[in-house]
Amino acid sequence: MPDSSAPQPIWLDFKDKHRCGILVGSGFLDRLPVLIETHGAGVLTPERKVLLLYDSAVETHYGARIDTALRAYNVIKHVVPAGEGSKSFSALEALCTRALSAGIDRKTLVIAVGGGVIGDLGGFAASILLRGLPLVHVPTTLLAHVDSAIGGKTAINAASGKNLIGTFYQPHLVIADSATLASLPRRQMIAGYGEVLKYACINDPPFFQWLQHNGKSLLNEPNSDATRYAVAHCARKKADIVLQDETEHGVRALLNLGHSFAHALESAYGYSDTLLHGEAVIIGIVLAARLSRQLGIAQDPQLEKTLTDHLASLDLLPPVAIDTSALRVDDLMATMARDKKNVGAHFNVIALRAIGDAFIYKNCPPEALRAVWTRFLASNGSLS
Amino acid sequence: MPDSSAPQPIWLDFKDKHRCGILVGSGFLDRLPVLIETHGAGVLTPERKVLLLYDSAVETHYGARIDTALRAYNVIKHVVPAGEGSKSFSALEALCTRALSAGIDRKTLVIAVGGGVIGDLGGFAASILLRGLPLVHVPTTLLAHVDSAIGGKTAINAASGKNLIGTFYQPHLVIADSATLASLPRRQMIAGYGEVLKYACINDPPFFQWLQHNGKSLLNEPNSDATRYAVAHCARKKADIVLQDETEHGVRALLNLGHSFAHALESAYGYSDTLLHGEAVIIGIVLAARLSRQLGIAQDPQLEKTLTDHLASLDLLPPVAIDTSALRVDDLMATMARDKKNVGAHFNVIALRAIGDAFIYKNCPPEALRAVWTRFLASNGSLS
Repeated sequence: MPDSSAPQPIWLDFKDKHRCGILVGSGFLDRLPVLIETHGAGVLTPERKVLLLYDSAVETHYGARIDTALRAYNVIKHVVPAGEGSKSFSALEALCTRALSAGIDRKTLVIAVGGGVIGDLGGFAASILLRGLPLVHVPTTLLAHVDSAIGGKTAINAASGKNLIGTFYQPHLVIADSATLASLPRRQMIAGYGEVLKYACINDPPFFQWLQHNGKSLLNEPNSDATRYAVAHCARKKADIVLQDETEHGVRALLNLGHSFAHALESAYGYSDTLLHGEAVIIGIVLAARLSRQLGIAQDPQLEKTLTDHLASLDLLPPVAIDTSALRVDDLMATMARDKKNVGAHFNVIALRAIGDAFIYKNCPPEALRAVWTRFLASNGSLS
Repeated sequence: MPDSSAPQPIWLDFKDKHRCGILVGSGFLDRLPVLIETHGAGVLTPERKVLLLYDSAVETHYGARIDTALRAYNVIKHVVPAGEGSKSFSALEALCTRALSAGIDRKTLVIAVGGGVIGDLGGFAASILLRGLPLVHVPTTLLAHVDSAIGGKTAINAASGKNLIGTFYQPHLVIADSATLASLPRRQMIAGYGEVLKYACINDPPFFQWLQHNGKSLLNEPNSDATRYAVAHCARKKADIVLQDETEHGVRALLNLGHSFAHALESAYGYSDTLLHGEAVIIGIVLAARLSRQLGIAQDPQLEKTLTDHLASLDLLPPVAIDTSALRVDDLMATMARDKKNVGAHFNVIALRAIGDAFIYKNCPPEALRAVWTRFLASNGSLS
C-alpha cells in the first residue's frame, strides 16, 4: 500500500523520451509543488510559469486548495465548464490563446486537474503549445485515476465522433490522490469501475477474483486502501500495455474492450449525462461477452453469467437505467463502422475467450453485431 | 545528381519510428502513386483513402496533373486559399471536419502539395487526425524543398505569433520535384534562397563558396541541376541536424539562424506579402552577423562584408525594398521577447563566429539587439 508521506511512483520508462511517474496515494492535493519537484517534472521557481487547468466542478470542491498549494508560483489559471462540451475545437483554441497571450515559454508546466475531459483537453493543449510543454495530470475521478490520465492519449471530439482528433503525448507525472474521489457522485464511481473491470477482463483472472471480493468496498469507500490498491494495480497494468505499444498498433487496442459498443451507445445519447462513458463500458463488456459466446469464441460457457452475476452483486446490472426505445440498430451499427480501430469496411472488435483472455477479433461478421444489438434493444437496455 | 527515372531517396532513419525518405529530382508530379508505393508510404489501393491538400495557387498550376495522377484512388480533396491565412485554427478545424466526415480511417494517406503553409497545415492535421495518419509532403516552393517539408515541424499561427501551435510529426516521404519550381515567382525563389544561405552560414563554408559560384544559376534556373544539387545538399544537412535533435532541445535551434530577427519583422508587417518569410530570413542573417560583430563574437572581421558582398552580387541587398518608417524598436524587441527559443526573460539568439560557424548565444544583452534594430531602421531597411 503506498505511504503518502514518502510515495514511490510507478514508472513508465519510455526508451526514446522522458519517463512518466504515477503516484498513487492520499492527501497529495496540498503538496503538489513538492511532489512535482521530487518526481521528475522539474523545479518550480517563482519565474517559471504554470498553466493550471481545471473545470467548474473541480473549482467548487478543490479550487481554493489547489490555488493555495500553488500560490507561490506564476500561475496562469484557466477554468472551463464541466462536461464533455469542453472537449471541443473552440475550447482548445480558447485555452491555447489564453496561454499564449499570458506569455508561456517552453519550460511552462501544464497541470491538468480533473477527470477525463480535463486530462484529454489539457494533454492535447500541452502537446501542441509551442510544439510541446511538460505536463502533470492530477486526476480527480476514478476513471481518470485508473485509465484516462495514464498512457498519453489526448483528444477532443468532432462532429462525427468522440476522440477523433488528438495526439499521443506522455505526461511527466500523474498524481492520483484518492482523497479527491470522496466528493465523486456514485455514478462517477460506477463509471470508473467499468474501466477497472475492463483490466480484469482483458488478461487478469486473479484481479477479477479480487474484484468479486472487494468491488463493493471500492465502490462504497472511494478514499480507501481498496481503492488505492485497485488504482495502483490498474495503473501498472495500463503502463505495461502502453510500454509495449504506445501508439496502438497492436496490443494497446485490447484496452478498448467494450468500447466499440460503448461509443455507439454514447453517440446515440449524444454523449449526454443519460449514459456516462464508464457506464457504457460496463454495458459494452457484457455485450462483448455475449458476442463472443454467440460466435462460439468463448471457451468458458459461464463467461457471460460469471460477469453478470458479479455486476448484479454490485447492483450494476444494468449500471444505469436507460430507455432504449428510441434507438435503432442501424444507427448503432453505423457508429460502430466509424470506430478508429476499423480499417476500411471491416469491423474489428475486442472479444473474450474467457474472463481475463481478450483478443482483437478482426472482420467480425456484421450480422453477429446486429444480433447483439437487437437483443439489447429488446430488453430495453436491462442486460437481461 | 539524382536520376529521375530511378530516384534514390535521402533517408532519415529515426531510431524509434518509421524512416522518412526525401526524393529530389524532376518530373515526379505525374508519378506520385508509384513513388509513394516504392518508397515506404505504403500500397495505394482503390479502397484506401487519400486526403489530398493543396492551395488555390497549386490548383492553378498543377491541380489537373495531380488529380490525374491520383485519379485511380479514393481521393478526398481539400483546397484552401493560398497564403498564411490558411495556417489558422479555423482552417485546421475545417480540414479535420472535412476529412472525418468523408470517413477517413487510420490507413488514410495525407498528401500535402504546396509551400510552407500547406506543409505546416497538412502536417499538423495529419498528426492529430485519429491521433496520426501517414503523411507525404510534395513541396512546390524552394523554401519548402530545402527546409519546411523536412524535419517534421508542423504549425498554425496564433494571435500572439507565428507557428506557436503545432507538433513534431515526421512524414513518410518528401517528394521534391524541381519542375514545380518553374512556375514560382522570383520573390519566392529569393525567399527559398534565404534558407539555402542559412545552411551555408550555420556550419558549411564549402557550401557558401559553392553558392558564391552557383547562387545565380540557382535563382535564375529553378528547374536545373544547380537547384537539385542545392536541394539535395540542404536536405541532407537538415536531415543530419534533425536526426541529432528531433524536438529542438539543442543543436536543431541552429536552424533558426536569422529567424528571431525575421519573425519580429514579419510580425511588424502583419505577415503580409510586403515581406516574405525567406526574405526576412536573409535580412535576419545579416542582422545576426552584425550583432555578432558588435558583441565581439565574430572571429572573422570580414564576416559581415563577405555576406553582404555575396548578397549584392545576387542583387539581394536588400532582398526586398521595404519601408521601415512606421516600425518601432520597442515593438520589434517585444516580438523577439516572445520567441519560442527564449526561456523566461532571457534572449537566446543564434550568433555567428564566422560564415559556417553558428552557435546558440544565451542571455544576449537586450541593448545589443536594440542597437542592431536602431541601425536597421535608420537605414530604412536597406541593410547599408
